[in-house]
Amino acid sequence: MAKEKVCLAYSGGLDTSIILAWLIEQGYEVVCFSADVGQNEDWKAAEQKALKIGATKLVVEDLQREFVDEILWRAVQCNAIWEDRYLLGTSLARPVIARAQMRVAQREGCVAVSHGCTGKGNDQVRFELAFYAIQPSIRVIAPWRLPEFFNRFAGRNDLLDYAAKMDIPVTSTKAKPWSMDENLAHCSYEAGILEDPDHTPPEDMWKMTDSPLKAPDTPEDFTIAFSQGLPSKLVLPSGKTVTDSVEIFLALNALGRKHGVGRIDIVENRYIGLKSRGCYDSPTMTILRLAHLDLEGLVMDREVRALRDQFVTFTWSKLLYNGLYFSPEREFIEKSIVASQDRVNGSVRLRVYKGSASVLGRSSDTEKLYSAEESSMDTLEDFSPVDTTGFIGIQAIRLKKYGLMKEESGEKLSRA
Amino acid sequence: MAKEKVCLAYSGGLDTSIILAWLIEQGYEVVCFSADVGQNEDWKAAEQKALKIGATKLVVEDLQREFVDEILWRAVQCNAIWEDRYLLGTSLARPVIARAQMRVAQREGCVAVSHGCTGKGNDQVRFELAFYAIQPSIRVIAPWRLPEFFNRFAGRNDLLDYAAKMDIPVTSTKAKPWSMDENLAHCSYEAGILEDPDHTPPEDMWKMTDSPLKAPDTPEDFTIAFSQGLPSKLVLPSGKTVTDSVEIFLALNALGRKHGVGRIDIVENRYIGLKSRGCYDSPTMTILRLAHLDLEGLVMDREVRALRDQFVTFTWSKLLYNGLYFSPEREFIEKSIVASQDRVNGSVRLRVYKGSASVLGRSSDTEKLYSAEESSMDTLEDFSPVDTTGFIGIQAIRLKKYGLMKEESGEKLSRA
Amino acid sequence: MAKEKVCLAYSGGLDTSIILAWLIEQGYEVVCFSADVGQNEDWKAAEQKALKIGATKLVVEDLQREFVDEILWRAVQCNAIWEDRYLLGTSLARPVIARAQMRVAQREGCVAVSHGCTGKGNDQVRFELAFYAIQPSIRVIAPWRLPEFFNRFAGRNDLLDYAAKMDIPVTSTKAKPWSMDENLAHCSYEAGILEDPDHTPPEDMWKMTDSPLKAPDTPEDFTIAFSQGLPSKLVLPSGKTVTDSVEIFLALNALGRKHGVGRIDIVENRYIGLKSRGCYDSPTMTILRLAHLDLEGLVMDREVRALRDQFVTFTWSKLLYNGLYFSPEREFIEKSIVASQDRVNGSVRLRVYKGSASVLGRSSDTEKLYSAEESSMDTLEDFSPVDTTGFIGIQAIRLKKYGLMKEESGEKLSRA
Amino acid sequence: MAKEKVCLAYSGGLDTSIILAWLIEQGYEVVCFSADVGQNEDWKAAEQKALKIGATKLVVEDLQREFVDEILWRAVQCNAIWEDRYLLGTSLARPVIARAQMRVAQREGCVAVSHGCTGKGNDQVRFELAFYAIQPSIRVIAPWRLPEFFNRFAGRNDLLDYAAKMDIPVTSTKAKPWSMDENLAHCSYEAGILEDPDHTPPEDMWKMTDSPLKAPDTPEDFTIAFSQGLPSKLVLPSGKTVTDSVEIFLALNALGRKHGVGRIDIVENRYIGLKSRGCYDSPTMTILRLAHLDLEGLVMDREVRALRDQFVTFTWSKLLYNGLYFSPEREFIEKSIVASQDRVNGSVRLRVYKGSASVLGRSSDTEKLYSAEESSMDTLEDFSPVDTTGFIGIQAIRLKKYGLMKEESGEKLSRA
Repeated sequence: MAKEKVCLAYSGGLDTSIILAWLIEQGYEVVCFSADVGQNEDWKAAEQKALKIGATKLVVEDLQREFVDEILWRAVQCNAIWEDRYLLGTSLARPVIARAQMRVAQREGCVAVSHGCTGKGNDQVRFELAFYAIQPSIRVIAPWRLPEFFNRFAGRNDLLDYAAKMDIPVTSTKAKPWSMDENLAHCSYEAGILEDPDHTPPEDMWKMTDSPLKAPDTPEDFTIAFSQGLPSKLVLPSGKTVTDSVEIFLALNALGRKHGVGRIDIVENRYIGLKSRGCYDSPTMTILRLAHLDLEGLVMDREVRALRDQFVTFTWSKLLYNGLYFSPEREFIEKSIVASQDRVNGSVRLRVYKGSASVLGRSSDTEKLYSAEESSMDTLEDFSPVDTTGFIGIQAIRLKKYGLMKEESGEKLSRA
Repeated sequence: MAKEKVCLAYSGGLDTSIILAWLIEQGYEVVCFSADVGQNEDWKAAEQKALKIGATKLVVEDLQREFVDEILWRAVQCNAIWEDRYLLGTSLARPVIARAQMRVAQREGCVAVSHGCTGKGNDQVRFELAFYAIQPSIRVIAPWRLPEFFNRFAGRNDLLDYAAKMDIPVTSTKAKPWSMDENLAHCSYEAGILEDPDHTPPEDMWKMTDSPLKAPDTPEDFTIAFSQGLPSKLVLPSGKTVTDSVEIFLALNALGRKHGVGRIDIVENRYIGLKSRGCYDSPTMTILRLAHLDLEGLVMDREVRALRDQFVTFTWSKLLYNGLYFSPEREFIEKSIVASQDRVNGSVRLRVYKGSASVLGRSSDTEKLYSAEESSMDTLEDFSPVDTTGFIGIQAIRLKKYGLMKEESGEKLSRA
Repeated sequence: MAKEKVCLAYSGGLDTSIILAWLIEQGYEVVCFSADVGQNEDWKAAEQKALKIGATKLVVEDLQREFVDEILWRAVQCNAIWEDRYLLGTSLARPVIARAQMRVAQREGCVAVSHGCTGKGNDQVRFELAFYAIQPSIRVIAPWRLPEFFNRFAGRNDLLDYAAKMDIPVTSTKAKPWSMDENLAHCSYEAGILEDPDHTPPEDMWKMTDSPLKAPDTPEDFTIAFSQGLPSKLVLPSGKTVTDSVEIFLALNALGRKHGVGRIDIVENRYIGLKSRGCYDSPTMTILRLAHLDLEGLVMDREVRALRDQFVTFTWSKLLYNGLYFSPEREFIEKSIVASQDRVNGSVRLRVYKGSASVLGRSSDTEKLYSAEESSMDTLEDFSPVDTTGFIGIQAIRLKKYGLMKEESGEKLSRA
Repeated sequence: MAKEKVCLAYSGGLDTSIILAWLIEQGYEVVCFSADVGQNEDWKAAEQKALKIGATKLVVEDLQREFVDEILWRAVQCNAIWEDRYLLGTSLARPVIARAQMRVAQREGCVAVSHGCTGKGNDQVRFELAFYAIQPSIRVIAPWRLPEFFNRFAGRNDLLDYAAKMDIPVTSTKAKPWSMDENLAHCSYEAGILEDPDHTPPEDMWKMTDSPLKAPDTPEDFTIAFSQGLPSKLVLPSGKTVTDSVEIFLALNALGRKHGVGRIDIVENRYIGLKSRGCYDSPTMTILRLAHLDLEGLVMDREVRALRDQFVTFTWSKLLYNGLYFSPEREFIEKSIVASQDRVNGSVRLRVYKGSASVLGRSSDTEKLYSAEESSMDTLEDFSPVDTTGFIGIQAIRLKKYGLMKEESGEKLSRA
């Protein structure tokens, strides 16, 4: 009888190599899968290692373009942010990775998918909710939640012993005292020494940004143009123009890296109910969020913006953080994002310098909500100041009643 | 018959001096009022000028402490922000100023209050809604909205002519090509050359921050402790400790000024329906918002935080921006702010450098929501990974139905 | 020189007849406009009266179909309701009426539009915001807000005197001691004796519903089918089937009238800051809201529904109440309404009896979110009860911390 | 060695009797607990049965007063409702029951609590989240989620066989083809024949309401007074006055029962991700919600109400439905409920008739937000109609821009 096939998300690291060997030990045929979402990886070496351990094959899919065009651009359009600070880099990559893994699983005739996520993290939830939505009948093997696995491999030594026994090559380089996950949008750092939230990350931890302290003494200025809320053109400090979405993303990452832009260090609330400390450097997303927000100030209607800010930005960000990309509610809310961006056309001039980005100016050839003349305090064209008296008078009706009520109750609003 | 008395908000500048003379011309006795909210003003000179023009007196009230303790501290507690960027410096000062002006008006037996706000701005709304709530029977004289005034003084030359005629001293210093408003929380810059939203503000415009480009090459680190969400102790880079609220505020302004922290430049949506461009430098508020947000990550419950972020922060900020401090809804929402801060106790270590502030670490002696052991990927104490399987399984019920629905309708979720 | 032309919203009643005469007196040529939104009106008589007073013509537009198809159906789709009780009948009619009046004004070359709304109500706001959005350059003449008009016609006798003088026919029938506004969606009653909020409306006031006390002793049952959230078929108690939107609307009004369904009596908050008491009878909208809500329970995803309820229903209703139909935010939010209704397909069986409607059952041939088998407590197919343990366990992590915190602080959650 | 003690929520029915016997079989000493939340139960018989099976004792706690005063009154204050229809009767009872069970468990020295809830329902979640918050160290035994239990008792016959073997008395009365749960607030009906959502419930199912079809032909009128949003006095149709909270609750239940008020029949979304059909009759809660909402129209500020409706009502209801009463977020949100009710003082006159309740009028001696004079269209005292022109003019600024934008893009807002 043919063995059951499993598609394993494979990184080439110790954990997923052990899981690969273990799955084979359990009697499965294993197809390994790796997603290229912009991290730097030696895919050739990973493939050799997987095959050596016994995988049938390693399928590597380049997902950079779909990651940018489908997810990151949407995040830019809605100014996505989690708990007012985290730009969601890991969360945003998960949907495209899970979907590609399912495509491979389906193509290869796998009955199950497997991954090496721990049982306390957000990623297991994000991957598995995606798997189940994409193919409700799929079976998921999450070894770090199976007692027969996690009891057997209770410590790092158990893993090393098993690696030795199974002849799994172990890189001799000393592991960093934290764990990392990298993609186009950011590199994340957590666990290890970072578990003490008062331990400042060492300077050499950050992979995607140079130190602001060592950044150039001269700022660099550049311009980003948006079309319907999407970055459509980047004019670099050198004057070079970039229009391709992935290239814009990479160019901004390079610029931000050089000037140390986009580091954050937070304690966040995992979906699983635990708090955890995470550090992230996200050059491009930091710059684009600032630029997009700024342009919206110029061209978006006030009330549309308020509704979008309070409901759409908040909700979309929460859904992505919690792994609910493939859900009816994300589909529902995304209709609003697109609807809000029709008029987000224009350019923002920015500066990067010593760890931060700032706006130098903004303009739009096509949008007219802002008018220097109208907003000017010096002219009264098309504006009757008397109207404001009425505007205030009508609003005051309700507030005068409030004041009278306070008076009656003996409470003095005039008292400090 | 005795003249009717008016209490005029008097700044000593050209506009309010003209209004003072004009009110007297209209037959009023005028009591001038100035609020000391931390701006640097020569109150003696202002008084002499007011008296010279014909005011009965100038009453100056020092509102710095009530401004900090009652309003700014509340803004810190709820991370107040307008349109995701503006820290509301002007809006926050208005309630204490309006209230003090009403106290003076009542003490002096005035039948009306007057101010020099233009008819297109937010401030007129903020002041007058406050006046009407505090004393519903008060009369408001807003000359810039009265045709007999604004038609007579249609341009700057009309003002200067009238000043000459009425012997009103005019400062010879050339006016800046923008208007400013300063208080403890920030200095604002708008109008004039800033009306072109693509015109980068000149470096010498900023009053409360030195240029990031000229800031010290060495960062400085310091610590802020919070008690129930309020700054309770500041340990400066020098090691000096500050605990008084106003002193903390001033010390952070000085530190932020030196390192160029807290500049923003935006196009915002006025209550009056116009967009306008504003620049603001707010050193202390920028630093405190970051520190407070950061500590909340460590010590605040996830769901309380989500509710507070989406409803309370958004609403309180909007109410303050729109001049609705003295309103039943502000009173209502503020109950929630206080209720959310009981557990916001702890310290945040920060760094300022070349235009921005960042967090180095945070800790709390009293709060225990964060636990390094629990969040650690390495231990399973008090945590059953099997639970997560169930957690995911239950959430997947709904998503599997979504997936089945998509399958039936021929839409493939696995497709990019 | 040709006279300027004004398009007046004309009802044939005393007020708008006086306004018609007055506008002519002011030197305008007046084109009268009436909207047929389903009220019963003698348009012939109205035309004769208008012409007699001096109008150039009366244009009557039948707006019933666009009222139902464009506005009322949207209200049904989002379960629109104001302050949890009012089904918005008047608010919903205003956009189609204002738009049609503007079409007439543009076709007839009018420089201004005019109406007879009072200065304290919602309708003036609704009409005029619509006018200004549709044609920003339009001039609006609102006599009841012009001092030269409202001071001249300070009481009913002034109106009658002017009518006599101008030879305007006045109906001899005694005016009702309240004012009414009727359209397909409802009849509204306010002012007069209703201004005492404790005065129970007299039974003979209600125009669109028979008294529940006199309604048939036998209930009647019927079925409404929805397609994408829109009523697509009505099977009447008689077995007769109706599929046309306007006919469905009329048939349900007849059925509801007979059984006294849809009366409400509330004190509401006008946009203008005043509270007012209003009574409304809305048979069809009452029945359709119940039926639509009920079907959504069967076929709509839980999270989509929660987001829709909290944000879309609330916001759309508020926008319509406040006269903001023609606004970017209404356009924005409406994208979400449509997006939420794709799957709202199925039928609801209802009963009307003695003043209320109730649901007898519901079903859907196409939608499968509900499954009797799955929800059954008796089977465990496709459901692992063990999962629920994990689901609860994960949620409990955060709550246990809350409990521990309470314990530490000496507060006993177990105490009543 | 002493046996471990378990506190079992015991109803006297077949399921919990089996669980009682099974727990004893597993080696536990069992203390049974029953909560009197207003259901009609023969506690004596239940005790005898429990003792016969082998329980150490049955502790019955009368929770009616704390149920009304602490939970139901809060629900009234915030107009709690789930998915726009369900008045949450079961959800509201769970916190007081869980808390009382924990008190008994602690008093009796139990190491665990147990219940007979199924693995698919909401109640298990509500009970257990409460248990864990109240005593984080408690152990929960949920037999219907333990494979050794649910596999052994896979069908009703297995239960009956075991009952016979263990000598557990089984009531001979035929089980109803649905399950019920009763308390002061309502009786719920689900499962069995109700699992077909198109199956109309049989008339004899409803326990707390007589049939509207058989209700008296004469309506009855009565008055409810509220003090700070809490029912403080009920004047019955007979003229009798009731002021005690529990007595008010019971009296309204009796009145509502007689007139068939408060039945609903819905498909709802369980927390567990499944849809289920539930029927509920809630006389008192239906009447009180209507009365309270109505009074708020008269006395509550518009903006406070809007915030409360959108955020507080929605959130509190959702938290209660999902079993999160003992949570930091419920505590947080409840501060707002109380804060919103200070001014909710006054009386509402109501009528019940043939299945529904309606409002006849409302009044307040102390609150003045409503003023017949001000809202009157006939007077202009304290109101300047000219103000409204300005109010509209200012709002139109933004909308005119919208209109111009549409014009430019060739879209005609005047087109139907």
